[in-house]
Parts: sequence; structure tokens; C-alpha cells
Amino acid sequence: MTVRRSGMNRRVILTSRPAGIAQAENFAIDELALEPLREGEVRIRNRFLSVDPAMRGWIADAGNYADPVPIGRVMRSLAVGEVVESRSRDWSEGDRVLGWFGWQEIATVTADAVVRRVVQTDLSPSLALGVLGINGVTALLALTMIGEPKAGETLLVSTAAGSVGSAVGQIGRLLGCRTVGIAGGSTKVRDCMGRFGYDAAIDYKAGKLDEAIARECPDGVDVYFDNTSGAVSDAVLPQLATGARVVVCGTAAIDRWNPWPTGPRVERHLLVKKARMQGFVVFDHMNRWEEAIAILAEWIREGKLDYSEDVLEGLEACPDAIAGLYRGENSGKRIIRL
Amino acid sequence: MTVRRSGMNRRVILTSRPAGIAQAENFAIDELALEPLREGEVRIRNRFLSVDPAMRGWIADAGNYADPVPIGRVMRSLAVGEVVESRSRDWSEGDRVLGWFGWQEIATVTADAVVRRVVQTDLSPSLALGVLGINGVTALLALTMIGEPKAGETLLVSTAAGSVGSAVGQIGRLLGCRTVGIAGGSTKVRDCMGRFGYDAAIDYKAGKLDEAIARECPDGVDVYFDNTSGAVSDAVLPQLATGARVVVCGTAAIDRWNPWPTGPRVERHLLVKKARMQGFVVFDHMNRWEEAIAILAEWIREGKLDYSEDVLEGLEACPDAIAGLYRGENSGKRIIRL
Repeated sequence: MTVRRSGMNRRVILTSRPAGIAQAENFAIDELALEPLREGEVRIRNRFLSVDPAMRGWIADAGNYADPVPIGRVMRSLAVGEVVESRSRDWSEGDRVLGWFGWQEIATVTADAVVRRVVQTDLSPSLALGVLGINGVTALLALTMIGEPKAGETLLVSTAAGSVGSAVGQIGRLLGCRTVGIAGGSTKVRDCMGRFGYDAAIDYKAGKLDEAIARECPDGVDVYFDNTSGAVSDAVLPQLATGARVVVCGTAAIDRWNPWPTGPRVERHLLVKKARMQGFVVFDHMNRWEEAIAILAEWIREGKLDYSEDVLEGLEACPDAIAGLYRGENSGKRIIRL
Repeated sequence: MTVRRSGMNRRVILTSRPAGIAQAENFAIDELALEPLREGEVRIRNRFLSVDPAMRGWIADAGNYADPVPIGRVMRSLAVGEVVESRSRDWSEGDRVLGWFGWQEIATVTADAVVRRVVQTDLSPSLALGVLGINGVTALLALTMIGEPKAGETLLVSTAAGSVGSAVGQIGRLLGCRTVGIAGGSTKVRDCMGRFGYDAAIDYKAGKLDEAIARECPDGVDVYFDNTSGAVSDAVLPQLATGARVVVCGTAAIDRWNPWPTGPRVERHLLVKKARMQGFVVFDHMNRWEEAIAILAEWIREGKLDYSEDVLEGLEACPDAIAGLYRGENSGKRIIRL
């Protein structure tokens, strides 16, 4: 880990646009002198940087929720850190903040880049990127707003041991659902059954996924929380219960959308089962973040909500970090500690 | 048209199960003597029989909303007629009723086969099978409950000149939407623009469907009322607006679901556009039929809601009638007059 030089900022720059998943060679690290703060700006010393599957979309050329990151610019990311200097009346030195601070050591931003003040100061600031950030908030809001789970219903979760999925499973259980997780490999399946409290867990790499779902969801799937798309979803859709809700939260199983992949048509399942399938993006619901985070934090303090973090060290770990997510090498929320 | 012999009932029997769409050779017509009514039974002289795309599903082996029609039994259908004899205290001779009376001249049923009393006696009884029956009620309820159209939004309808689609387009217009219809061939496109009042109509047989949708829906599609699935839907999904709603109402473009057909994956569209896709089956909403029919009937009396009927004559027309629907030979709601 390189030591930061005073007055300098090291940054991870997007240097080329990948066709599929961003690889290490699509980034470079540079170093730049800090300039004096201008009126309205805030300077943040980043402590933890986020690595998210959705970053693939932020790098892609078009057709996504956000404008693509321009070539030659700092990679967009959420980060958590402390205000070290402020010329904004909204923020003061020492404030712990979450925001769009990018993959760099020092962020110099206007106040609109700050997403929120991290008020849960009794808990690790890193949680603001994961279980008390987009992952946990996504899990709670998407599950309740779109999934609408009722006690006694069967909730099936893909990437069930992941940073969103593990929270979904635990929240579903707290809401009285029978929870069934789908994950890849025996370690993740063990995590599902152990720390994440699923009633059943299925290893999709073990084969016969259809049969396993039918066995673990004998009354059908009332809520399918879909983080993957792909073959896992294709096995779930025929097993939806009448009136089922499918939360479309991620498409981790799909490497690229150009050319656009095909799969079994969903219309007939939705029609026959009178089922619903709906996309969810957590940034559409900023007005509900604090409420959601307060609930999640309380569950963590009470020991009702477990989580795992996959911590990489130093800015040098950034370039390969997204590709690593898609290689499935992380267990839990991937973050970079600076 | 064969004349009915007193005391006898002619019926259309399902004799074999088709792999895809039911053809004429899957049915036979027989004649049976009527037996005396038993306590609780009602006898109805059918006047109009319904022919619906959904019948394909009622004949198929499994995996549908209803149990399949057994081999050797009268083809299930809605019909409208008059009570000619009653041993049920709920019904009297002369009552005009809609119900599950089947493809036959005389239905002898228990009272639970009666769906409703047709109270709109100022209008043709045949309408109870179409615009004042499943088609119109589907259009109104599915559009409002799932489509949730708002004034100024763009509503795109597939099979836009059909018995459901034509009502959807007109209702959407009454609700203040910009309405765009997709139909096959110049006659149907002309009907869309003329009697059904669409703001724009697209002939999918003319090619370049993507470009036509982009031209007619420049701000994207807020509500897609999908009666077809297939290539038309595949062209629509990439053009959904943010927050769009897709009403999955029918899959007329798909000949068979065995083997299950594939198509472009929908998950990414739903995710990026924060869109919803949901199936609708009108029989789940029987408690709202009378309310819906009253609204639709008033629009018809006021000249605000047009419809077309495709009337075939006599029981002999039944066996080929479903196949004809899928050959696209009807214009408007297909019914059989007895």
C-alpha cells in the first residue's frame, strides 16, 4: 500500500471502455496535486471505497440508469470518509459522510455529491457502503415495496449469500417468510444455512436446480428476489406461485448485453400465474434511506442481521476489483480500505 | 344451419387433444336427448356462443389457469341465452343470462355455472360475450388496475383492432392518453385510426417495427398493453419509458409453448427502466364485473366506445372457429349465433 503524499491525490481513472465486464487494464492510477477549495466545495478523505456489480453499467456505453463514466475521469463510486476541509455551510471538518466521492484518496466535490451524513457512529463506517448502504437499503426497500412478502409465504433469493441477498433472506425471515436461498458452492450454501438463517439453501452448481427448487418450495415461489437473471431465473419462473412477485434487482449472471441474450419467454408464466415482475433501483428511493438504515442498524445492534465484508487493501486493488466480483471471488460486500 | 329437434340437444365435443392450436378435427358434433331437470338445475337456450383465444389454454394438457376440458366432453365456453326451465330458486324462465354453458344448443347446468344476469337488455345480448363481457371488462380492468394510465402518457396496444385491444385503445383515449396501436395489415390499421380513434397505428407486417414505434412513441412507452408476446413485444420492450407498466394479457403471437419458445431477455429492460410487467386474468376479478360493465355500457350508449363482432352462423361453425382466430381471419370479437 502506497503512502499518500501530503497535498497530492491518487486516483483510479477509467482509460478505456470494455465490451463486457471492466478489467484491470481498463483503468490506470495517477497522482494529482490538490488545488485550493472553492466556495461551496467540500474536501473528503475517503476511508472506504465501494465496489458494486452495478459499476459495470456505469462504465457501459449507454442504455443504463446513469450516464457512463467518461474516459479519462475518476471511476464513479460511493465512498465513505471524513470531511477534512469545507467551504460549504452544510458540512464541517470531521463530519462522517457517504457520497459519490469516486475511486480516489481525496475527493473535492460540491455539496450535492454528498448522499448522507453517517449518523450510526457506533458502527463501522464501512457498513455505510454495504448493509447500511445500497445493499441493505436495496434489500429492505425492494423486498418490501415490490416483493410485498407476507408471513408464511415462500421467499426465494438468488445470490443468497451475497451482500444484497444475505440481507434479503434475513429480512424475509424476520417478516415471517419461509426463506430459500440459491448460491454457488458449498461454502456459500453453508453461510446461507448458518449465519444467514435460511430455511433451505440450494447449490446451483450441484445441478438439477429445477428439482431442488420444487423440493424446497413445494407450494411454489411467492416472492422471487432476483439478483442474477440467467439460468437460475429460468429455473425459478416456471415454479412461481399464483400471484407471485419477482423483484428484478440485478443481472449478475449475464456477462454482456451486446449481443442481447435470449432466454425462455416469461409472458406465459406471468399470465398464467397472474404474477408480477418489476425492476428496482435503490437511488430512486433516496427519501426512504434514513428510515431504512435506522431499521437495519437496529437489527444489527440486536444481533438479528448478520453481514459479511470482503475488504481489499489500498487503491491498487481497485482496477481488478469489478472483474473479481464477476469471477465470484468475493464473499460478502466488496470494499476497498484506504 | 341444422334445425334443432325438440327434446334434443346438439353439442360440440372435444374428441382429441391438439399439440398446438385446436383444429376442426379435434372436435365432433353429436346429438343427445334432454333429460328431465333435477332439483337445483337450470336449462338455458343458448343464443350466442363465445370463441376466445384463451380456449387454446382450456384445451391444452396442463400448466394453465383452468383444468383442461376432458376428452369426450362439451367444449367449455361462455354463452349467453335465456332460461327456458328452472328448478333453481335463483333463476326463472325468461331470464337473460351469461354463463359457462358450453358449445351446445341447450345447457343443463347447476346455478353455479351462471356467471351473471345480463341486465343491459337495451343492447344486443351478443355484447355480453364481447365488449360487455370478458373482452371489454378485461380491457377496462387490466388497463386501469395494472396499466395505471395517466393523462398525457403514451399507451401502446398490440392486436390494437382486436376485441380487447380496440376497447383498450378507446378507453386509454377517454382517460387522456396518447394511444398508439399495433395491428396486422392495412384494414386493421385503418380501423385503428378510424373507428377506434388511435392517435397513431402501426402495421407490424410492414416491417421496421422498431423504427415505427420510436417514431410514434418519441418519449417511450409508458403503458404497453400486450395481447401478443412474440416479435411485437420484443420490439416494444427496449422502448419502455422509465416507470413503464406492461400488462400481460395474452400471447396470441405464440403458436405453442412446447417446446417453450425463447426471446430476448426482459430483466435488463425492467431493471434499467424500473418497469413492471404483470399478468392479468379477468376471472380473478368477478367482484368488479358489474361495475365495469355498467361503465362500458354507458360509453356504448353515448357513442364513445365502438366495437366489432365477427359472427359465425350455427353450431357447425364451432370446430374450426378457434383455429380461425389464430389464422387471424376474424375482425372483432368472434361469436357463434345459434
